[in-house]
Amino acid sequence: MTEGEGVKILLAGSAGFCFGVKRATKMAFQASEDHDRICSLGPIIHSPQVVRRLEEKGVEVIQNVEDIVSGAVVIRSHGVTLCELEAIVEKNLKIVDATCPFVKKAHENAEQLGRQGYSLVIVGEKEHPEVQGIVSYARSAGNVYVVATAEEAEKLALTGKIGLVAQTTQSFDNFSEVVKACLRKGREVRVFNTICDATSVRQNEACEIARQSDLVLVIGGYNSANTARLAKICRAIQPRTHHIETVADLEKSWFDGVSVVGITAGASTPKWIIDEVVEKVKCAGK
Amino acid sequence: MTEGEGVKILLAGSAGFCFGVKRATKMAFQASEDHDRICSLGPIIHSPQVVRRLEEKGVEVIQNVEDIVSGAVVIRSHGVTLCELEAIVEKNLKIVDATCPFVKKAHENAEQLGRQGYSLVIVGEKEHPEVQGIVSYARSAGNVYVVATAEEAEKLALTGKIGLVAQTTQSFDNFSEVVKACLRKGREVRVFNTICDATSVRQNEACEIARQSDLVLVIGGYNSANTARLAKICRAIQPRTHHIETVADLEKSWFDGVSVVGITAGASTPKWIIDEVVEKVKCAGK
Repeated sequence: MTEGEGVKILLAGSAGFCFGVKRATKMAFQASEDHDRICSLGPIIHSPQVVRRLEEKGVEVIQNVEDIVSGAVVIRSHGVTLCELEAIVEKNLKIVDATCPFVKKAHENAEQLGRQGYSLVIVGEKEHPEVQGIVSYARSAGNVYVVATAEEAEKLALTGKIGLVAQTTQSFDNFSEVVKACLRKGREVRVFNTICDATSVRQNEACEIARQSDLVLVIGGYNSANTARLAKICRAIQPRTHHIETVADLEKSWFDGVSVVGITAGASTPKWIIDEVVEKVKCAGK
Repeated sequence: MTEGEGVKILLAGSAGFCFGVKRATKMAFQASEDHDRICSLGPIIHSPQVVRRLEEKGVEVIQNVEDIVSGAVVIRSHGVTLCELEAIVEKNLKIVDATCPFVKKAHENAEQLGRQGYSLVIVGEKEHPEVQGIVSYARSAGNVYVVATAEEAEKLALTGKIGLVAQTTQSFDNFSEVVKACLRKGREVRVFNTICDATSVRQNEACEIARQSDLVLVIGGYNSANTARLAKICRAIQPRTHHIETVADLEKSWFDGVSVVGITAGASTPKWIIDEVVEKVKCAGK
């Protein structure tokens, strides 16, 4: 840490909560006031600190619908599968649906493409709960595939009518490469661009900041895929990049000879965690 | 020309008539037998030699529907506009519809996209009769645009639902670049890949041959766009490339020091014209 003189901080305007996460968190805190018995199906967002605060307010994290007995259940911003939703309805639980509206739109598009006879290609991470939700809505589709890359799409035995949607956090270039691969296979390719700009805006701004900094701090849950990706992108530009979860993870030695510190954060990082990091870096630089 | 020793000839298997042109030409010759009074609306294909042979059989070339009085009219492989078709029907003329089935499919796709509320983007050459035909079928579309490149597409004020079709002779890469540009603009992009493989197969083979030849001959009407493009592609690989229309255009000096001659031909070049060139090159090399 540069002692005796201030460090310059470049804080990304896009750091932290995206629209869907902000909305979901607000709904969960509100629901904790409205209901005596309440749980969320899986952690509401990939921020252990926010989840802990909600637990203190009585919002229990439950992994499976079968384990919920009664009360209200918050559906997180990633959404749930159609099977889970049906099980929740079956159990007569009170639903607080905090599914991100952009994810909901992807559900609708997948459902429509399936119903209209398209083979469906979902571009994203197979294991991600958002993708599993989207897959579940396409159950009337003859074939449903999840691919991460164009290379994977090229291997698919696809012909005829091909429909595409993307996990909302996909990169546009990767998505359009998969579209191109499908265009080589099918005579009709129908694409719903379900990508949410927040991700690319945040990534582009992170690159911009990394280019101007001697040290980059990327704040977010260690279980947050979008934070990890953000750190990877920054590290490719500025090797002195650290993924931290809270202010407690900062290490003094990182700041040796540093005059400009770039700071950004993933979509599920709350403002108060960012603020704490900024304050600590500010003080440390004096 | 290498005197005293034979030149090696590499003749492209894909040289000459494509499926649609072969079909149209056959239909025109057949129709010339079946009808006393017959014309074609515009030259049936871009080969002055074929058009002359048809004229000798009584198939007159007429540019405008208004100028046709009676008898049968051959619609060429490029197709016609919906207005022209309606005028022909109105006049009670006998129709010999030699529109390429691949072009007809593009008409149907443009009509469907227009009817279903898509803004339509047609990728191709604005002035080409095939493209003008496709445009005419999209008359129920709110907006119809013809673009040649992705740069042109980027300038369009497009949003919402975007439909795309291609002129059948488009290159796949150019088409998919335009698709990508549209994906940045519209939330839904529906693409009918109306490209006919014959063009890319012919172009790829021409490249292959040009790489192995000291001299390349590309045969086809000087008014044939696809022949001119083929010659351009070959010239980029082998500068000693000549676009010729018939055997009469060959020049002795081209063959100085040449041992391998590559030969290909556009989609509207008849077999007999190719054969004549091959024979002449063979003899000349002895």
